[in-house]
Amino acid sequence: MVKALLFDVFGTVVDWRGSVAREAKKALAPKGHELDWRGFARRWRDRYQPAMEEVRSGARPYTILDVLHRENLEALLEEFGVSGLGEAEKDDLNRAWHRLDPWPDAVLGLSRLKRKYIIGTCSNGNIALMVNMARHARLPWDTILGAEVARAYKPQPDAYRLSCAALGLAPGEVMMTAAHNGDLHAAAAEGMATAFVPRRTEHGPGQTTDLEADPGFTVVAEDFIDLADRLGCP
Amino acid sequence: MVKALLFDVFGTVVDWRGSVAREAKKALAPKGHELDWRGFARRWRDRYQPAMEEVRSGARPYTILDVLHRENLEALLEEFGVSGLGEAEKDDLNRAWHRLDPWPDAVLGLSRLKRKYIIGTCSNGNIALMVNMARHARLPWDTILGAEVARAYKPQPDAYRLSCAALGLAPGEVMMTAAHNGDLHAAAAEGMATAFVPRRTEHGPGQTTDLEADPGFTVVAEDFIDLADRLGCP
Repeated sequence: MVKALLFDVFGTVVDWRGSVAREAKKALAPKGHELDWRGFARRWRDRYQPAMEEVRSGARPYTILDVLHRENLEALLEEFGVSGLGEAEKDDLNRAWHRLDPWPDAVLGLSRLKRKYIIGTCSNGNIALMVNMARHARLPWDTILGAEVARAYKPQPDAYRLSCAALGLAPGEVMMTAAHNGDLHAAAAEGMATAFVPRRTEHGPGQTTDLEADPGFTVVAEDFIDLADRLGCP
Repeated sequence: MVKALLFDVFGTVVDWRGSVAREAKKALAPKGHELDWRGFARRWRDRYQPAMEEVRSGARPYTILDVLHRENLEALLEEFGVSGLGEAEKDDLNRAWHRLDPWPDAVLGLSRLKRKYIIGTCSNGNIALMVNMARHARLPWDTILGAEVARAYKPQPDAYRLSCAALGLAPGEVMMTAAHNGDLHAAAAEGMATAFVPRRTEHGPGQTTDLEADPGFTVVAEDFIDLADRLGCP
């Protein structure tokens, strides 16, 4: 019955924390800054939900994530006492989010899943971000869907509903895959099948959330390779 | 300067005429119909521009190509005196457009171009059609753009402009590739670079249009392999 798998990306497919920390260090350490790089990544990420909430609440029109990330970077640099970066340097640092590395099982798992299912993104990242990341990380997506195509940020229903519609499929023919229980509950509410894959170090060694799947999802797998096994993808 | 190549698909990447003829024969011959299959494909295609023109003119809201094709199929079956097909059979025949075969140089050429450039569609076909076709024909797109994402049919400016914007690129950083002079003139008017690749049998052996490139395009190549050569893609 399931014909396509749509994936959350940040945290589920790629390690944003380690990758943004590395990119920030690469950009700022040569300028003499010595920061808590993983803390820098975490604080950037902390500003993600509040920025999207402005769009979800209707307080501001739909704005792509690259722009929200860039606005948040300004505040973040101030918070960490980093000054003197040029606009082009800040733009390049902002594209750290385009250069995130996959979890070790992601590319092989996706490649196996793709043999049997359409695979695509259902991320809050915008199209350019997702395309550049896919090329960097060798993620073999059939296409990029999610927030920018739907013009709605998850967990708003349109982000799921319109992504399924774009594939010409009913929600029940599409499985949402994520490392986040909340994302899957929202997808299930739209009638999608659900797959939980834990990423127990997404937020670092002391992570306390999303360590296990809530009850009721269609499939629970240990990683993408286990997911391919469970879905019968050789 | 060019960072991405966007492609017209019907006629440029895939052979709609031969493929639709084959699919129609496969669906209808077992039911005792003996039609001019290539004529059937051509007449279906003849109804394509008028249907999109209703959307372009504003007479009807944006409607995906699968729906336009399906409406046109009803009229086409009547024209060819084919009756008695069930809805599911007509839906499947309509998806003939999802099962088009690539020109012989397309997959290798695209694979080579992808090593250096982002490659995507800028087609009037909807996302599901393009995704299913890519899986059928092994077209290695980075992503699917064009009419459905832009909610505008080529040659309307938004179809080109918003496809470039979705990649986070200026039009001058994106090269439109097509076998149709008109498509490239419209893309050039938006500031895109242009590549002409002739498909001299798209409409059959007696084709009279688009046999050669008009003057002024950025690149003219004989096929996608020649295009990869000319753009320095090993």
